[in-house]
Amino acid sequence: MLDIATLRDRHPDHWNMAAAIRTLALDAVAAASSGHSGMPIGMADVATVLYRNHLKFDAADPEWPDRDRFILSNGHGSMLLYALLYLTGDREVTLDQIKNFRQLHAITAGHPESFLAKGIETTTGPLGQGLGNSVGFALAEEILRARFGSKIMNHNTYVFAGDGCLMEGISQEALSMAGHKRLSKLIVFFDDNGITIDGGTSLADSTDQKKRFAASGWHVQEIDGHDPEAIDAAITAAKAANRPSMIACKTHIALGTSAQDTAKGHGALTDEQLIKDAKEAYGWSYGPFEIPSDIKQAWEEVGRQGAKAHADWKERLEGLGSGRRATFDRMMSGEVPKKLSATIRALKKQVSETEPKVATRKASEMVLEVVNPVTPETVGGSADLTGSNNTKTADLGVFDAKNRKGRYIHYGIREHGMAAAMNGIALHGGLRPYGGTFLTFSDYARGAIRLSALMGSPVTYVMTHDSIGLGEDGPTHQPVEHLAMLRATPNINVFRPADAVEVAEAWELALSSTSTPSVLALSRQGVPTLRTKHRTNNLTSRGAYVLAEAEGKRQAILLATGSEVSLALEARDMLQAEGIGTRVVSMPCWELFAQQDESYRRKVLPAGPVRVGIEAAVRFGWDEWLLGERGSRGKAGFVGMNSFGASAPAEELYKYFNITADAAADQVRDLLLGHKR
Amino acid sequence: MLDIATLRDRHPDHWNMAAAIRTLALDAVAAASSGHSGMPIGMADVATVLYRNHLKFDAADPEWPDRDRFILSNGHGSMLLYALLYLTGDREVTLDQIKNFRQLHAITAGHPESFLAKGIETTTGPLGQGLGNSVGFALAEEILRARFGSKIMNHNTYVFAGDGCLMEGISQEALSMAGHKRLSKLIVFFDDNGITIDGGTSLADSTDQKKRFAASGWHVQEIDGHDPEAIDAAITAAKAANRPSMIACKTHIALGTSAQDTAKGHGALTDEQLIKDAKEAYGWSYGPFEIPSDIKQAWEEVGRQGAKAHADWKERLEGLGSGRRATFDRMMSGEVPKKLSATIRALKKQVSETEPKVATRKASEMVLEVVNPVTPETVGGSADLTGSNNTKTADLGVFDAKNRKGRYIHYGIREHGMAAAMNGIALHGGLRPYGGTFLTFSDYARGAIRLSALMGSPVTYVMTHDSIGLGEDGPTHQPVEHLAMLRATPNINVFRPADAVEVAEAWELALSSTSTPSVLALSRQGVPTLRTKHRTNNLTSRGAYVLAEAEGKRQAILLATGSEVSLALEARDMLQAEGIGTRVVSMPCWELFAQQDESYRRKVLPAGPVRVGIEAAVRFGWDEWLLGERGSRGKAGFVGMNSFGASAPAEELYKYFNITADAAADQVRDLLLGHKR
Repeated sequence: MLDIATLRDRHPDHWNMAAAIRTLALDAVAAASSGHSGMPIGMADVATVLYRNHLKFDAADPEWPDRDRFILSNGHGSMLLYALLYLTGDREVTLDQIKNFRQLHAITAGHPESFLAKGIETTTGPLGQGLGNSVGFALAEEILRARFGSKIMNHNTYVFAGDGCLMEGISQEALSMAGHKRLSKLIVFFDDNGITIDGGTSLADSTDQKKRFAASGWHVQEIDGHDPEAIDAAITAAKAANRPSMIACKTHIALGTSAQDTAKGHGALTDEQLIKDAKEAYGWSYGPFEIPSDIKQAWEEVGRQGAKAHADWKERLEGLGSGRRATFDRMMSGEVPKKLSATIRALKKQVSETEPKVATRKASEMVLEVVNPVTPETVGGSADLTGSNNTKTADLGVFDAKNRKGRYIHYGIREHGMAAAMNGIALHGGLRPYGGTFLTFSDYARGAIRLSALMGSPVTYVMTHDSIGLGEDGPTHQPVEHLAMLRATPNINVFRPADAVEVAEAWELALSSTSTPSVLALSRQGVPTLRTKHRTNNLTSRGAYVLAEAEGKRQAILLATGSEVSLALEARDMLQAEGIGTRVVSMPCWELFAQQDESYRRKVLPAGPVRVGIEAAVRFGWDEWLLGERGSRGKAGFVGMNSFGASAPAEELYKYFNITADAAADQVRDLLLGHKR
Repeated sequence: MLDIATLRDRHPDHWNMAAAIRTLALDAVAAASSGHSGMPIGMADVATVLYRNHLKFDAADPEWPDRDRFILSNGHGSMLLYALLYLTGDREVTLDQIKNFRQLHAITAGHPESFLAKGIETTTGPLGQGLGNSVGFALAEEILRARFGSKIMNHNTYVFAGDGCLMEGISQEALSMAGHKRLSKLIVFFDDNGITIDGGTSLADSTDQKKRFAASGWHVQEIDGHDPEAIDAAITAAKAANRPSMIACKTHIALGTSAQDTAKGHGALTDEQLIKDAKEAYGWSYGPFEIPSDIKQAWEEVGRQGAKAHADWKERLEGLGSGRRATFDRMMSGEVPKKLSATIRALKKQVSETEPKVATRKASEMVLEVVNPVTPETVGGSADLTGSNNTKTADLGVFDAKNRKGRYIHYGIREHGMAAAMNGIALHGGLRPYGGTFLTFSDYARGAIRLSALMGSPVTYVMTHDSIGLGEDGPTHQPVEHLAMLRATPNINVFRPADAVEVAEAWELALSSTSTPSVLALSRQGVPTLRTKHRTNNLTSRGAYVLAEAEGKRQAILLATGSEVSLALEARDMLQAEGIGTRVVSMPCWELFAQQDESYRRKVLPAGPVRVGIEAAVRFGWDEWLLGERGSRGKAGFVGMNSFGASAPAEELYKYFNITADAAADQVRDLLLGHKR
């Protein structure tokens, strides 16, 4: 049996500081009647030693670019983070906020939400995501250190992760990436408490996590997670290691409570007697939410420890030289380089003049070839589909254990890990990540893509092979519902550009975004240049626009995206030849179109003409544009998919699934006949 | 340099049989001008030894329940499987099919599709899925063996997996489950060729896979994957091991071609000279697709090797005793037990009479408590949310290394692995899996859920905490777009039942399904019983139905699902009090409603009245029902979410996001005013 009294007596200062965390967690969870008491209580010792003796931060400026990052991957233990922020003097996470834990409008949400307070590095809760992010934080630090020198960028990334994080598959993607890239400033504390929601971890797992991490090249230690000296020594050793480091911390969940070492202890401990007994065991004689001033002062002192280092850093930054300094500041601010817009315009002009017939994935590469040289903040990559996603340009260089200046990351066959790492890179600041896979494998990355959207991380997903147009690889590789899935998700701009000009415009918008991730859905197959008349304006920025106007009386509107816009133009030719005035609307980004004012939307989609949508994907979601209040008398047509695809050459599939200009023209004719009846 | 001639000379019979696979792969890929030559060529030796010396199968009956299962997780090497099927005498995969590799209507699709030929055990291509499935195959075998004895069920599950499979996170979930559950009849061949699409695996990985598997309790060997004797000995050792076994096979991708050991070799080798040279190196002097009769006969002999074992097995099955025999046959056929329907009806009656106010997740438990005892084929489980998903009933027993008769699986915090394993259980036959997690974590399982749909595996996903109604855990845990994501996917029935009666009906449909997976989206919070008048018919089977008719002139229709149906009824009360005749339609399953004939749909949703949808989720997709051709004059209302959620008690969130009966009634009033204007 663990002897709390001995722990208390051996390191009384440490004990009391850790007890402040423990009791705040108990009190806040009790007040909310929900939450997770056990993890903050179990990991309070590790957190206290980390913050007191190692973590480089300045509570007065939680956004200091060279601070150490602290990532709570087991985000259900959010009260640990809130307690640390409050105790060290964070200006946003106040005692009132802690008293309002998990209440409407409080910034102390059930799980840490990065957009609610500056001191929260990332949004966690879905398990393993923080660990995935941490790879991105550490990558960003390495790249920026190589770029600006270790006087400007030189910090650690610390992660708390639980059994849940390590059971999730994303953890394997993260740890194998970190091991391979030798991210030696990444230090993970595994909260090895042997308990999950269902009971002991032995119900579902018997993995030796230390061996597992070691198998991917990690430095590994195991310690008693309640022994301050052991914790301190382990962190020191981890910092000295030349590879990422994992410290397995044997801890007792809900330490010192009657629920210690049980699944009950994982959840909300709200029983009054239990809390009273626990506080007594802790030697804590204060009221709810009460922190004696000496303990609070000791914690605030910890919050100020980094002030000197911060000031010194600022001085070094001043000494960087005005050019590099300006670049550093601009990159950290997330501001777009001035040259971007002109670069895009020049490419658009060239494309409109030369009218290449290229796949939009290839057009994307053309854009990146000119954009990457003028945007030093871009960091490209792919989940092992570099040649298919067309994500690697000549000047990037490959980031690896030896070349830290490389701007291209071979993420391996790890879509989820890539997406989570990109979130981390974006959250770190200073860099702008983009990464590629096939659109259908957005499925694998979905957990992290949703978090890009929720956090508003301006990550760019380059999703190629965006329809049955990929051909022979068949239905597992052919997205049909993925555009709907992504469009249904709040705060993602889903671009499906029709030609190289729209691709350039979409990239400009993606790279200028500050709080919305972007998906570029790009074709495998070649498409003609449709925007053959150069326009300096970014038409894609309005989401949808009239690409070809009806001649004569406007009887029909064809709405299409991506590779199907050229089919719409063909159908228009057929219909116009029959005297049916037909407008073609290109809709590269529904979300941006929905944000336009009503008068613009009405101008693009006036009431009256029949409407037919064309997209090599399911109709799900299209009725908003086809049948909306300006819709065509409750009837509309759609040319697309209503099943999974098949394995065959692309052209045959388009015919087989009847996604053709003929089919679109037929639907217009049928609808017009229906109207006349 | 590898000496092909030595390999040929040392084992000429083996060599020629393997060369038949290699040349078929070369010829088929060349004919298709697409596909993957390198993997079939690299793994031909392992496959040949496995099939000749170990795999228990009978080519005459690829559905023999006790056959060994062969899973090609690296499914891009599909020609390996097609070659094996053709060579051993499969009746479906003929030479003509192989000549039509990757062509429209051929069953030899780019990636193996389980629904195209009986000999294809599962659909693979998205990497790691086959490995995930294999855990389910092996689980099913263990459970059925415990149930029916090793004379009836006693087979191995063999898996080919590549670097891609092992880099994907799902592989960790799969291997740690298999290790923990001690699935000793699972044998994985790792095609350790050091090559991925981007280049050498060293670009992205340095994991020691042998150590990694060992860390999760696997038996591990490493062999030369081109040495028949070593392969044979390793398989023998793997079969003898008392835990799952991994054999790392050092192979040369595209062996013997000029693209050997290169990323080019991974893809389609179509160059005539390359193929000519390769065949020469193989000592193969035959024409394209030509297999000399002695080699074909040798392979067909392999296809007949299991016939005797199969006949013996049939005899043992005869001897099983009529009761157990009938149960076995029924379970393998996927037929529902006769008692199911009466059991559901009895529960519905009881619920209608007692009118409990319970969360639909709790109602689901009530259903399972009565259903599990009469359906011995159900296998329950949860990704560590057993108490929240309410998936474990009293009689199931926990499946683990010691209790093979247990019917409940603690999958651990592995949603993706769980879903893939459930696909495997369903594909194995004999058992019907269901498994739980929070609806929002369908994100993590998305890759495997899509494959349930594509394959038509009748898996049931118990997705609880289906809206902001989960409350304080906040936006990471609150699904808003997930219903849309699932509904947009072809061939999934997404049930969102409104009360305990609809839950019972949904379960009946899910358990009766033969070729469609089901999702049950269930509430955390309590809901009243709405179906208080017992009806023997399963109303949910029609997808949507009139729950409450308008009194007086029908001016409005409220359409709602799940926990919001009771809000619709409240709104109806308000509107009726004002004399506005209001119908309430409960829509527990859009997909089934869409399958009804038009006259039924029109009866439920007649033209004329204004329509308002109510669902605590995004509107995306709803316009099909709100604005469709029978819609309300191009205008409709919707009460739901248009952003992510927030962390607060559930009741407060419903008010904050304005998902209330008042809001619904207001929208009806506004729409009616608009109509009058």
